[in-house]
Amino acid sequence: MKDEGKTTKRHPIGSPPGTLMPLGEVYSGAVEMHVLSYTEDTVRRQHFADADTLAEHLQDPALTWITVTGVHDSSLIESIGRTASIHPLFLEDIMNLMIRPKVEFLDSQMLIIMKTPELGEDSHVLQMCQASIVTGPGYVITFLDRPMDMFEPLVKRIEAKGSTFRRRGPEYLAYAVMDILIDRYYTVIDLLGDKSEELEEEILKGGDSTHAVRIHRIRNQLISLRKTVWPIREVIRSIMGEEGRIDPSIRIYYSDIYDHVIQIMDHVETLRDIISGLMDIYMSAVSNRMNEVMKVLTVIATIFIPLTFIAGVYGMNFEHMPELAWRWGYFIVLGIMLAVSVIMIIFFRKRRWI
Amino acid sequence: MKDEGKTTKRHPIGSPPGTLMPLGEVYSGAVEMHVLSYTEDTVRRQHFADADTLAEHLQDPALTWITVTGVHDSSLIESIGRTASIHPLFLEDIMNLMIRPKVEFLDSQMLIIMKTPELGEDSHVLQMCQASIVTGPGYVITFLDRPMDMFEPLVKRIEAKGSTFRRRGPEYLAYAVMDILIDRYYTVIDLLGDKSEELEEEILKGGDSTHAVRIHRIRNQLISLRKTVWPIREVIRSIMGEEGRIDPSIRIYYSDIYDHVIQIMDHVETLRDIISGLMDIYMSAVSNRMNEVMKVLTVIATIFIPLTFIAGVYGMNFEHMPELAWRWGYFIVLGIMLAVSVIMIIFFRKRRWI
Amino acid sequence: MKDEGKTTKRHPIGSPPGTLMPLGEVYSGAVEMHVLSYTEDTVRRQHFADADTLAEHLQDPALTWITVTGVHDSSLIESIGRTASIHPLFLEDIMNLMIRPKVEFLDSQMLIIMKTPELGEDSHVLQMCQASIVTGPGYVITFLDRPMDMFEPLVKRIEAKGSTFRRRGPEYLAYAVMDILIDRYYTVIDLLGDKSEELEEEILKGGDSTHAVRIHRIRNQLISLRKTVWPIREVIRSIMGEEGRIDPSIRIYYSDIYDHVIQIMDHVETLRDIISGLMDIYMSAVSNRMNEVMKVLTVIATIFIPLTFIAGVYGMNFEHMPELAWRWGYFIVLGIMLAVSVIMIIFFRKRRWI
Amino acid sequence: MKDEGKTTKRHPIGSPPGTLMPLGEVYSGAVEMHVLSYTEDTVRRQHFADADTLAEHLQDPALTWITVTGVHDSSLIESIGRTASIHPLFLEDIMNLMIRPKVEFLDSQMLIIMKTPELGEDSHVLQMCQASIVTGPGYVITFLDRPMDMFEPLVKRIEAKGSTFRRRGPEYLAYAVMDILIDRYYTVIDLLGDKSEELEEEILKGGDSTHAVRIHRIRNQLISLRKTVWPIREVIRSIMGEEGRIDPSIRIYYSDIYDHVIQIMDHVETLRDIISGLMDIYMSAVSNRMNEVMKVLTVIATIFIPLTFIAGVYGMNFEHMPELAWRWGYFIVLGIMLAVSVIMIIFFRKRRWI
Amino acid sequence: MKDEGKTTKRHPIGSPPGTLMPLGEVYSGAVEMHVLSYTEDTVRRQHFADADTLAEHLQDPALTWITVTGVHDSSLIESIGRTASIHPLFLEDIMNLMIRPKVEFLDSQMLIIMKTPELGEDSHVLQMCQASIVTGPGYVITFLDRPMDMFEPLVKRIEAKGSTFRRRGPEYLAYAVMDILIDRYYTVIDLLGDKSEELEEEILKGGDSTHAVRIHRIRNQLISLRKTVWPIREVIRSIMGEEGRIDPSIRIYYSDIYDHVIQIMDHVETLRDIISGLMDIYMSAVSNRMNEVMKVLTVIATIFIPLTFIAGVYGMNFEHMPELAWRWGYFIVLGIMLAVSVIMIIFFRKRRWI
Repeated sequence: MKDEGKTTKRHPIGSPPGTLMPLGEVYSGAVEMHVLSYTEDTVRRQHFADADTLAEHLQDPALTWITVTGVHDSSLIESIGRTASIHPLFLEDIMNLMIRPKVEFLDSQMLIIMKTPELGEDSHVLQMCQASIVTGPGYVITFLDRPMDMFEPLVKRIEAKGSTFRRRGPEYLAYAVMDILIDRYYTVIDLLGDKSEELEEEILKGGDSTHAVRIHRIRNQLISLRKTVWPIREVIRSIMGEEGRIDPSIRIYYSDIYDHVIQIMDHVETLRDIISGLMDIYMSAVSNRMNEVMKVLTVIATIFIPLTFIAGVYGMNFEHMPELAWRWGYFIVLGIMLAVSVIMIIFFRKRRWI
Repeated sequence: MKDEGKTTKRHPIGSPPGTLMPLGEVYSGAVEMHVLSYTEDTVRRQHFADADTLAEHLQDPALTWITVTGVHDSSLIESIGRTASIHPLFLEDIMNLMIRPKVEFLDSQMLIIMKTPELGEDSHVLQMCQASIVTGPGYVITFLDRPMDMFEPLVKRIEAKGSTFRRRGPEYLAYAVMDILIDRYYTVIDLLGDKSEELEEEILKGGDSTHAVRIHRIRNQLISLRKTVWPIREVIRSIMGEEGRIDPSIRIYYSDIYDHVIQIMDHVETLRDIISGLMDIYMSAVSNRMNEVMKVLTVIATIFIPLTFIAGVYGMNFEHMPELAWRWGYFIVLGIMLAVSVIMIIFFRKRRWI
Repeated sequence: MKDEGKTTKRHPIGSPPGTLMPLGEVYSGAVEMHVLSYTEDTVRRQHFADADTLAEHLQDPALTWITVTGVHDSSLIESIGRTASIHPLFLEDIMNLMIRPKVEFLDSQMLIIMKTPELGEDSHVLQMCQASIVTGPGYVITFLDRPMDMFEPLVKRIEAKGSTFRRRGPEYLAYAVMDILIDRYYTVIDLLGDKSEELEEEILKGGDSTHAVRIHRIRNQLISLRKTVWPIREVIRSIMGEEGRIDPSIRIYYSDIYDHVIQIMDHVETLRDIISGLMDIYMSAVSNRMNEVMKVLTVIATIFIPLTFIAGVYGMNFEHMPELAWRWGYFIVLGIMLAVSVIMIIFFRKRRWI
Repeated sequence: MKDEGKTTKRHPIGSPPGTLMPLGEVYSGAVEMHVLSYTEDTVRRQHFADADTLAEHLQDPALTWITVTGVHDSSLIESIGRTASIHPLFLEDIMNLMIRPKVEFLDSQMLIIMKTPELGEDSHVLQMCQASIVTGPGYVITFLDRPMDMFEPLVKRIEAKGSTFRRRGPEYLAYAVMDILIDRYYTVIDLLGDKSEELEEEILKGGDSTHAVRIHRIRNQLISLRKTVWPIREVIRSIMGEEGRIDPSIRIYYSDIYDHVIQIMDHVETLRDIISGLMDIYMSAVSNRMNEVMKVLTVIATIFIPLTFIAGVYGMNFEHMPELAWRWGYFIVLGIMLAVSVIMIIFFRKRRWI
Repeated sequence: MKDEGKTTKRHPIGSPPGTLMPLGEVYSGAVEMHVLSYTEDTVRRQHFADADTLAEHLQDPALTWITVTGVHDSSLIESIGRTASIHPLFLEDIMNLMIRPKVEFLDSQMLIIMKTPELGEDSHVLQMCQASIVTGPGYVITFLDRPMDMFEPLVKRIEAKGSTFRRRGPEYLAYAVMDILIDRYYTVIDLLGDKSEELEEEILKGGDSTHAVRIHRIRNQLISLRKTVWPIREVIRSIMGEEGRIDPSIRIYYSDIYDHVIQIMDHVETLRDIISGLMDIYMSAVSNRMNEVMKVLTVIATIFIPLTFIAGVYGMNFEHMPELAWRWGYFIVLGIMLAVSVIMIIFFRKRRWI
């Protein structure tokens, strides 16, 4: 669980509330800012560099969607906050990568903190990325804690000619962003599902010690998914409950992603059940293997130990051992040995050990 | 768990809501459409090929029950949707085989998404089939994701002379369809119950490694049943709660299948408990077997190892070993060996190992 | 779990609601019917054979308690139902031995479905008997799925001279019947409690493989008790909630059996906890035994294997082995062997293996 | 679990409600009765023998606290009940030692059934004593199922000069009695806590088979504590909820013992968690020990078995074995044996087995 | 779990409520008292020695923050209580180190009992420190059960020039104190998280018996954190619910620490899940190691036991053993031995044991 790691930054104990400081595992690349303004008829897309230009964009009567990638530069975040008049406590939350998903309402502003999962290259490490969405009259500002390339289809949908999208307000845009963030959970869950199926097949063929580790890894990834999905459900429920703020025609879309989140939770719980069953199967495979090993040892030892004893007896050097002088002594003993081993083998057959 | 499989289709991330696209594991046979129209006096049953004919059926003053088998043809579903004026979001849900059972109400229409289990030939694979029911004034449209042959008795009941069935509206028909879909759970649960009893008997005789796999399989099938039964309960409760939409004389029937669903959940939970007890019994059987194996090894080794040592001693080639020259040396040693083994056997008897 | 067995009968899929057909494991003896009519002053007890006589009894102004033993004869049940005007859905429930305890109210009638446990002779098999109670104005009809001999004390109480019982209405009689059915749970729980204590004592002396099976059996019996007790609680709560139907002076008696049911649930849960602790103790006993076996093997093998090796060395036939010619060679070697075994024994003593 | 034992008495099935009969494990000593009457100014303490004297005490305008030790004499209990006009159902509950803690209100009377734990001499057996408290206008009657010596401090507090205690009513006295009964849980929990700590230390040093039994015993004692604490919480909550009956100035005291009960539940749950962790540690200690045993066996066997084989080879009696005639053959073989064992030892060192 | 330890003090059974007596594990150093009074413009910091000086400070119109370190001196606590008119039950709670976190309101006073964790030097022992906060008009009194050095940053924030802190009332100061106490949980959780990660890495490399103990220790520390965090949540919720007492402008700060507590609970639960997964992994590592040991033994024994038997056969001293006289007998036997071992090795290769 990387997000519990050593490099995690925390507020020093006793800091006043509203202290702006990046918290958690922080991305250290350059901060980038983009703006997409659109009305029903026009779409304008721009890259911009400082918070001053932002002010102009915000005064634009078009709906302005600003994306800020990287939240670790306190002074920049502060100046954006001042320009867009975002409450300092909101800014503190945006810079804090260790908080749970949540939604806060203040006057006409709404702050949504979302998490979205990202599987590393080798899909061993599951990282939780944070996206904060601030909506206000005529603007949506999205803060991403690291670059994410998944908003391109959304931009395309907005830019598409005659898109009905452009007729809708900031809450619809916020929904569309959340929808994409939530869809990433499906990707990760499908992947974990595939992995667990693969693991099941392998374990049924015969579990080895790497399987326990893999089960453990999936388990931990599910724990960490679950930890973020539950509060997201609450977030969406809260938004849907804000009668005055969310238009009924838009609430249906939130209700749609609410269904998605429920379904994701369902999948996560089901996978947890399946994974815990896998651990049982794995343990039973290990026991069975041990049993097999023991049986082989027991069969071999049990057959040969008495035979070796018999051989040992006739290897003794007593002067008076009548059998040794018998003409057929050797062959009789060989015969006895054969008989003993046949009896043993029959015994083991009956017990189904061989 | 097939329904988590690799061939699963998903919406590309960022698709606009209402995109019609088959999702999940999709049946690929030809789409078939049937219609059954009935009034109190007449019953008409027909096969039809395109959505245009549908329009006529819908205008028929008789109660029209349309069954569409196969939901993977987006254009067909769309044209049916347009003809019967079904909301695009309903159509999206109908084509999505990965969603949970649910019910949605919109104006005079009601959409019920149901799941029903199907056990494959060798009853190893449990598949969840999806049936979507759209009711509206004067019609019920049932969308099945694959051919299901279980509605024949229902058709017969409708066609039966003087059937009281025909006097009732679309909500009653929807109930009758749901009743059949829910009855399939009983079949599957009875089968799983029989299997688990069989397994129990076999394990009590002596568990082997295939049993763990069978327990695991039943466990997973129960997980997957449970996952669909819980939301079905909610579906029926929601329908019963729609005071204006469901006639009180019909609500009693929904209350009946609500009882069935509760009972199914009960059976599933009980079976889960029993199955988890079976795993314990299996593990204990495995441990006991290992114990048996160990005991045999220990008894044999412990008896013969000292004897072999004694034989070894008199097999040494020292020039000065007085015992070797004794007249009865050999027989004395044999006697000692006998004594040692008798003592050992008594010792093991006391410990109840043999 | 017999009640999940193979002989279980189910409605064919698609049967219309209200189909009268015996479901579940059905008793096949002859149906018997008794009637007990009483007013404050008179008591009349009779055996009767067909539903027509029933009609007369029902018109009797005395409180009439009819007991029907055996519910598998659809035509008889139907004619009783018609005579006493019991709703077809009630009759269907009465004949269905697979449903959960429940209560239904319809006009002036109340249907209570109860389950009561019965332990077979060898107390291995726990069967759930079903008793359905229909109350109406002036009558109580009890349907038992098989003969039960436990109502005799109740009959005596009614017949007793000056019994206050006879002053009370059908709801009190229904309570008295339920009280007896619920008391049977105590008998079974006490028996299971005794068994589990016995098992505990035996396991603490040293568990063997039959104990796992017995634990498993008790566990399953508790699961099956629990499955019926929970809904009984709901049944009594519902009855107590029917303000208009149940007289306050009688509600206190229902509240009394409600307490009993809570207590039974308590005992069942406690026993489940204890039984699951027993399984742990059993597993630990098995592990310990395995440990013992291993230690004996290890001690014996570890002491004699090196000795046997030494003997083997001096059993070699090399022409040039100086020790063999030594005067005291043999005794020196015996001394070394003794020393080795003493060291080994000290080593094992230290480790507390012997 | 003694309170599930064989000597347990139950009502015969079908007894009428209100039957007075001692139930459960009954104390068989002589019944004792004491009375303590106090007003603000006077305190009078008396022993009395029959129910008639009781009537006088009850008419006394002072607050009268009657303690009855022993509840197995039905006729005495009945006459006390008649004298103090206690409802027969209350009396039945007082004589039934198998019921859960509960509170009942009837007119001006309140019946509180309490349980308090008692650890036997060797602290192996945890017994649940029952104390029933009946409060009415001007009197409190406490029924104890066996002698308990813990009320002495309470009596002293009442007798103390100028005690504010004496200014308060029967509900305060009932509170004070309950407080003492609840305090006994702390004693038992502290003791179980100490035991579990001791056990932990011992197991960490190396678990043996007696530990499993001791864990099991503490576990069962916690189960039985838990079973009584939960309903006590409900009892106090119900009393606090009786707005009209309990004076607000006294409710704060009930709220205090409510806090205590919550804390006891907390401790019990925490101890259960700790105990279940101990079982894990114990099982892991057992596994580790088995591992140790196996390693010793494997190391010894694996080193000497090949050596013994080599010795065996040169113990063969073939006429043509060139090595036997070699001048240094014996020493070469000894050298090889040494080399083999060194290699083995290095191998085991690498694997960290020795 | 130290706080369940033997030195724990408890009220003697039957003590009257409000008895002032230090309970629990008590710090025995000297009691220290500090005062910090501030208005918007001035800050005064002082050390004081007896309760009389306290009276002056309380009459000071400035906001007075008094810190008392050490709560074991009943007479001092009592005189502070009298001076600041704190209710005796509040004082009893302050001196009782064994109670759960809670909040109580009385007239204008509020008592908050908080717990904060402290890890010992070697971080093996987790201690729970208690801090009680009494707020009243114009003052906040903090009682610490032992010296804690973490309030320095808070003092600095108050002393800072132009601090907005000084404009706010006692509830804000109480919040700030709680915030610091809660922040300590993060420190402990981060540390436990690091430890569990470290443990995971070590176990994945190969678990040994110390790991089980370390898992157990972390588990118990989590249990003990959890036990205090849950009630803290309730405390904050209660404070936030006191509409009249807490100013809305300050409630937002309580809502902030409420979020923190939720997050801490989240972390604790997640860590518990992870730790319980670690135990599984550890057990599986132990099993695997045992398997390895067994395999080595089995391979060596199985290869050499038959060979030793063959050598034994030709070590017998029969007079008539034709093979012994064969010219190439010895080499043929060596060849047979080689063949047998090659076959064995192939067999083990196939089974993947070597």
